[in-house]
Amino acid sequence: MFFHKQELQYKASPAKPDAIFARRLQEVLGGQYGEITVAMQYGFQAWNCHIPGKYRDLLYGIGAEEFGHVEMLAIMIAQLLEKAPVEQSEAAAAADPVVGAVLGGMDVQAAIVAGAGVRPVDSNGNPWQGSYITASGNLLADFTANANAEMQGRVQVARIYNMTDDDGVRDLLSFLLARDTMHQNQWIRAAQELREEGVEDLPVPSNFPLARERRDVAYEYINFSDGVAAAEGSWASGSTPDGKGEFTYLDGPETAVPMPPPTTPDPRFYGTDGKPNIVDKAEGAIKDKLTEK
Amino acid sequence: MFFHKQELQYKASPAKPDAIFARRLQEVLGGQYGEITVAMQYGFQAWNCHIPGKYRDLLYGIGAEEFGHVEMLAIMIAQLLEKAPVEQSEAAAAADPVVGAVLGGMDVQAAIVAGAGVRPVDSNGNPWQGSYITASGNLLADFTANANAEMQGRVQVARIYNMTDDDGVRDLLSFLLARDTMHQNQWIRAAQELREEGVEDLPVPSNFPLARERRDVAYEYINFSDGVAAAEGSWASGSTPDGKGEFTYLDGPETAVPMPPPTTPDPRFYGTDGKPNIVDKAEGAIKDKLTEK
Amino acid sequence: MFFHKQELQYKASPAKPDAIFARRLQEVLGGQYGEITVAMQYGFQAWNCHIPGKYRDLLYGIGAEEFGHVEMLAIMIAQLLEKAPVEQSEAAAAADPVVGAVLGGMDVQAAIVAGAGVRPVDSNGNPWQGSYITASGNLLADFTANANAEMQGRVQVARIYNMTDDDGVRDLLSFLLARDTMHQNQWIRAAQELREEGVEDLPVPSNFPLARERRDVAYEYINFSDGVAAAEGSWASGSTPDGKGEFTYLDGPETAVPMPPPTTPDPRFYGTDGKPNIVDKAEGAIKDKLTEK
Amino acid sequence: MFFHKQELQYKASPAKPDAIFARRLQEVLGGQYGEITVAMQYGFQAWNCHIPGKYRDLLYGIGAEEFGHVEMLAIMIAQLLEKAPVEQSEAAAAADPVVGAVLGGMDVQAAIVAGAGVRPVDSNGNPWQGSYITASGNLLADFTANANAEMQGRVQVARIYNMTDDDGVRDLLSFLLARDTMHQNQWIRAAQELREEGVEDLPVPSNFPLARERRDVAYEYINFSDGVAAAEGSWASGSTPDGKGEFTYLDGPETAVPMPPPTTPDPRFYGTDGKPNIVDKAEGAIKDKLTEK
Amino acid sequence: MFFHKQELQYKASPAKPDAIFARRLQEVLGGQYGEITVAMQYGFQAWNCHIPGKYRDLLYGIGAEEFGHVEMLAIMIAQLLEKAPVEQSEAAAAADPVVGAVLGGMDVQAAIVAGAGVRPVDSNGNPWQGSYITASGNLLADFTANANAEMQGRVQVARIYNMTDDDGVRDLLSFLLARDTMHQNQWIRAAQELREEGVEDLPVPSNFPLARERRDVAYEYINFSDGVAAAEGSWASGSTPDGKGEFTYLDGPETAVPMPPPTTPDPRFYGTDGKPNIVDKAEGAIKDKLTEK
Amino acid sequence: MFFHKQELQYKASPAKPDAIFARRLQEVLGGQYGEITVAMQYGFQAWNCHIPGKYRDLLYGIGAEEFGHVEMLAIMIAQLLEKAPVEQSEAAAAADPVVGAVLGGMDVQAAIVAGAGVRPVDSNGNPWQGSYITASGNLLADFTANANAEMQGRVQVARIYNMTDDDGVRDLLSFLLARDTMHQNQWIRAAQELREEGVEDLPVPSNFPLARERRDVAYEYINFSDGVAAAEGSWASGSTPDGKGEFTYLDGPETAVPMPPPTTPDPRFYGTDGKPNIVDKAEGAIKDKLTEK
Repeated sequence: MFFHKQELQYKASPAKPDAIFARRLQEVLGGQYGEITVAMQYGFQAWNCHIPGKYRDLLYGIGAEEFGHVEMLAIMIAQLLEKAPVEQSEAAAAADPVVGAVLGGMDVQAAIVAGAGVRPVDSNGNPWQGSYITASGNLLADFTANANAEMQGRVQVARIYNMTDDDGVRDLLSFLLARDTMHQNQWIRAAQELREEGVEDLPVPSNFPLARERRDVAYEYINFSDGVAAAEGSWASGSTPDGKGEFTYLDGPETAVPMPPPTTPDPRFYGTDGKPNIVDKAEGAIKDKLTEK
Repeated sequence: MFFHKQELQYKASPAKPDAIFARRLQEVLGGQYGEITVAMQYGFQAWNCHIPGKYRDLLYGIGAEEFGHVEMLAIMIAQLLEKAPVEQSEAAAAADPVVGAVLGGMDVQAAIVAGAGVRPVDSNGNPWQGSYITASGNLLADFTANANAEMQGRVQVARIYNMTDDDGVRDLLSFLLARDTMHQNQWIRAAQELREEGVEDLPVPSNFPLARERRDVAYEYINFSDGVAAAEGSWASGSTPDGKGEFTYLDGPETAVPMPPPTTPDPRFYGTDGKPNIVDKAEGAIKDKLTEK
Repeated sequence: MFFHKQELQYKASPAKPDAIFARRLQEVLGGQYGEITVAMQYGFQAWNCHIPGKYRDLLYGIGAEEFGHVEMLAIMIAQLLEKAPVEQSEAAAAADPVVGAVLGGMDVQAAIVAGAGVRPVDSNGNPWQGSYITASGNLLADFTANANAEMQGRVQVARIYNMTDDDGVRDLLSFLLARDTMHQNQWIRAAQELREEGVEDLPVPSNFPLARERRDVAYEYINFSDGVAAAEGSWASGSTPDGKGEFTYLDGPETAVPMPPPTTPDPRFYGTDGKPNIVDKAEGAIKDKLTEK
Repeated sequence: MFFHKQELQYKASPAKPDAIFARRLQEVLGGQYGEITVAMQYGFQAWNCHIPGKYRDLLYGIGAEEFGHVEMLAIMIAQLLEKAPVEQSEAAAAADPVVGAVLGGMDVQAAIVAGAGVRPVDSNGNPWQGSYITASGNLLADFTANANAEMQGRVQVARIYNMTDDDGVRDLLSFLLARDTMHQNQWIRAAQELREEGVEDLPVPSNFPLARERRDVAYEYINFSDGVAAAEGSWASGSTPDGKGEFTYLDGPETAVPMPPPTTPDPRFYGTDGKPNIVDKAEGAIKDKLTEK
Repeated sequence: MFFHKQELQYKASPAKPDAIFARRLQEVLGGQYGEITVAMQYGFQAWNCHIPGKYRDLLYGIGAEEFGHVEMLAIMIAQLLEKAPVEQSEAAAAADPVVGAVLGGMDVQAAIVAGAGVRPVDSNGNPWQGSYITASGNLLADFTANANAEMQGRVQVARIYNMTDDDGVRDLLSFLLARDTMHQNQWIRAAQELREEGVEDLPVPSNFPLARERRDVAYEYINFSDGVAAAEGSWASGSTPDGKGEFTYLDGPETAVPMPPPTTPDPRFYGTDGKPNIVDKAEGAIKDKLTEK
Repeated sequence: MFFHKQELQYKASPAKPDAIFARRLQEVLGGQYGEITVAMQYGFQAWNCHIPGKYRDLLYGIGAEEFGHVEMLAIMIAQLLEKAPVEQSEAAAAADPVVGAVLGGMDVQAAIVAGAGVRPVDSNGNPWQGSYITASGNLLADFTANANAEMQGRVQVARIYNMTDDDGVRDLLSFLLARDTMHQNQWIRAAQELREEGVEDLPVPSNFPLARERRDVAYEYINFSDGVAAAEGSWASGSTPDGKGEFTYLDGPETAVPMPPPTTPDPRFYGTDGKPNIVDKAEGAIKDKLTEK
């Protein structure tokens, strides 16, 4: 169950409205790596978690905080839009350079659809979608996904930080940056703990019998491009992070197999198969190939 | 530039067709973490890369291999579909249990749209989409995304491995599993190398001045759920993976701010603002609020 | 802020797993009118609300309950999937009719992507998307949207109720049906209250000056089809619900205007405009039309 | 069958082109609540209608008018785009403020994809999609959806009305506003008639036996937020609109059940289950858990 | 304007319901090349047409017929679904093989969302979307798109024809096949007429000055794969269809340019640029790179 | 297999950055008819091809070139974005007209998501999607789709050509225009060759027995609009391109059938069916209709 309190974790009010910046901020609310994504991702991971205790508690604990971040950003964006202008035509833009700038930079649907309100979309107006989230049931894979999500999210907040000099907005962003720092550290640490406890290991999934994979190609870097510097990295020689092999380097594939022959499905799929149509000689009409069989 | 050769990196032919399994295999071709995703992801990361040399060469080198994996899976799926049945109605299903099973389990668009062919979709028929990929320009974030993609991909291949006992299919999957093992190891190692070289560090992005984030909340685990075991993990106490702090644990938020008052945009957005309409007393008609101002 | 408690509002455990029914239940979790939709819809309406007090409190109060319903359904679906079979090929289906049935009826991505877990999708595997929700800032319009959402939702739950005879599932559905009954009543009542208080009225938006619309066609039913019974309804004669007119009926449009002439954009858009290309007589080459101007 | 006439129901020509405003107008053509949505929604409701006569005739009669509205808006938008500029680079924008404004405000795909033409998209360029429409087969639910669609549509037209002062455009919008007024009234009246005739009632669907829902929680407002004013509304006490109960108010849930234990699916889904891998002691290799069983 | 008549162009009733086949038929209603696509495509091309007269009349004339085809298929699908079963769980499927087959083969949303009704989706449940259509304003390009659409559509209808032996359904399909034959012929003929009249020519767009393209590579087949048979086709030698050149064949590219150096955007985008962070020696803290400049 | 070389087929560097133009160029990279579409389309057609030899070699040969075009455009766009400004608020736009222009015209996600990098999206930020491509297995249909794709693509490049005067960009576009000229010619010629060889013919699919279509309506132009000029085209009289009939013209449909009666699905779908609910007289409660049966 979720309980709501009409308070915010941190102050979320701009010094002044800025309809253009409101659109930028939509990215970290409703974008691929926005707060809706992490809130939903941690929720679904918790609901799909197969172990009681600390890992699931961690997912619930951070997940619920993220729903609050969704709210903080939503409230902030609504305030940034408070003075969104109504005039939005060529004539208005030509007459007033500020209107012209706003017109180009703000999300037009924030005005028309939401009446100067926040929307569950990214900074280009693409609706948030469920395919942004990851919840596989494998915790080492999923915590790595979470670390990535917090990294991408913090990169985006950092970029947006420089797109405004509004003290109120920057104050909120400095808070979100710090929370992303925390969550990056937490997911990385939790992933390590999974390995330390032997609950999960590399390669993921660690409980798939390695004997069933082609071990002879499991540590070969086969370079399909012509960039020779790739051989200089520690990913091309030396021991591997999973502790189970040694990297080797190949300057392209050493083996290949011929492409199998083209398929010939049932003729009633009417693909082009290079075979002559079956013509009824008496009538000169094309006949059903299958009937002929 | 890309050059194509009509050969495959590995054998990709089933022992016999299996239209149902073909649908499962679409997931690792055209799904969120399928081969199209990694091929395109590494490509876009290379094109957005800001450093010449080994990191970019690594991206190009693996990326081009993945385009070949797209092809291997496509060729395999087309062969699995070769005997896809044409009859697909209730009557056919009632008459023949095998038809009934195939009918429920295969992708109907593989028959109707592609004529027993492969398609750029996942196992539920959702078209592949550009929003599956990540290419931020920050290599530590992106290599973490890559490690995650290879983990999720290997989990899915492992699951699918048990959904068939076809020797030809399993042979290909055992090859793909091994390549995923390699690529997991490579991206993890490459992420480490970025940190070892000081090119990038935690928290990502490391070149954003930490002084600009609220450092006082950067290492606090604030638990917004009531699972007490969350405090037992190494993510709640001890030193942090970024080497810059110590985890602390809070049993919920310690501070809060009141929610700001509702916004009052221009009345010509016709939101409900609780204010009476302006009525022209002479005519009894509602007047334009703005005109009145 | 949202706070999470590891309890459920109501019991959400099936008597036994049923992977096929799990897929059906995804509709009321992640479909157009599923619980994610109403939870997010009421949240965004609250964040966009322009009046403090009872209406906004109502939105927050129901919205937070709906997030808990998301969780109940997610937990239920995960349990329904607990015995999802691993074998999912033609051979397995042919050998075992139950496997065949499950194979056709369950969501294949629940197995491959989520490892027998719940996902933020509908019963056909389409990811939930932000464009399902409505939050215009006009409360009479939005409460009508909410009444509709609760009606559609209850219709779907009622349909699904008959697709199972599992006591645990039916118990949860009987609870959700009752809550939908409540919320239907609440949104309808709240919409009435908006009109009683004069905060908003018909036609929506009521604060747009009626003098600006073509009042002469504001109450005419112009029938563009040939179904004569349409004239028999109370929507074709008598007073109108907004209390501002009388319905009239027309058997088709009485006036029409000719279609305006086709447009002729800049020739450098290279549309087909019926004009000859400009040819350089000396060279016989097509010339840039604009350069000629 | 549909028959087309090369006339318009109302004049649809702007006083002058305005490429920026053309983009705004796309919202009420191809957006969530644009004319394509209502035309298709009424069509699908008619095709799914289970009663002959007046209700179906009403759906056909309004539906066909809406297809004509699609055409009027399309024709208007094409004319608004007629002078769309070709120059669209930074240099052009820097040199000419009008070009700069247009460039930011118009839909770039209207130029590149449609050659200064109209497109089936909303004002942010999102393609229209079938998931915008509602046609459940339950007429009371669907007429409520229709009332909502006409309300949202009229709100959007009213907002857009103020974004232009072009007489031709405003003339068309004043016509569309009036038709939306009519259709709001009609759907509301038709919904009432369904209840008056006993064909459908509240709660929707009325033909689901109420005895199968948990009647004890069917009229309780359980407030999951801390906004106390929510108790002051008529949705918290007094008789309910369905005439079958009395509203009561609860300051949060009174009962709760513990969360069920985590699920443990087949180990071959390779989720993290907290159990040790099965290792072959002789070889030290991970074994297939299922084989061990 | 569109006028609706409650008649169908052709009989559209099945001999008996078949819920599985109903799903197949959704493809040619709401799929990429279904009737909604062609109806909307011809409509938008007509609205974007820049020449009055026969070409625009042709678009309107066929377009309106296609809206009637949408209706015929919708009516047919609704009837095919009339006996859709309510029981849809594992238990029901295990008990009754017919239920099991139906369950796997029908669209679950047809039952849950539409109550055994038709929906604006394809045979996998993907909603129809505006991005399926093409209307560029260039008639030769667009008529080629139309010819393709009618070809793809007829291929799909032909495939579906063999998936049923219901006389009523086959009767309708035989009608649709014939209309597709007609429309293929019409668009091909209309494309020829555009060239005969000199209104448009190859290469499309013909009014772009050829002198502005690199004519030296305009007729070279540069083979980037190793399939030597490609040189045997008439596309590798001889005169070209546009009548302006001669095909030549190259066994791979003859020229290449080095890849340009990586980009170095503003450091405040926090991409990984290989440059050391700027550290304040006194404080040891990372500083803002831009501030240092 | 694909092999990558760190060279480009042609020079792809702008004279100077232009963030606005970068967005335009995204259309021909990641739009409906961009380079990703043709690369993937030719690939999937090759993988689904049922004939070995020249046609499949042609698909592979052009397909691989197109992947290189994806790369050229990606590299070009990244360079165009190199000086993308960081400041993007109302204040920045008001202070600097160039910033204002850029702000309105560039893709905001290029900055926030990709750090001044290229993305797999169109010029409105819609992600590329698999539903853009066509690969039916019928080569005449598919080569027509390819001809259309190259035509639409060349129209778009021609339009974009005029949106810049940057010599580097125009140089690349002049190269792409020429390659599109070549590929238009090739697909048209290949389609002719299919007919010349009798491998495929009109109407497509030619191997469906014509006797199964309603031949009496296969060459009638039934005009559903009132544009009389449509009868003047060669598509209304004379011989048909398939060589199998004569066009005739009808001024509207000559026959029609009444619409079938509405459907009456199982009452447990709770659609509105006009029948009274079944009430238990003793208790006054609605009963389950099915139970009554």
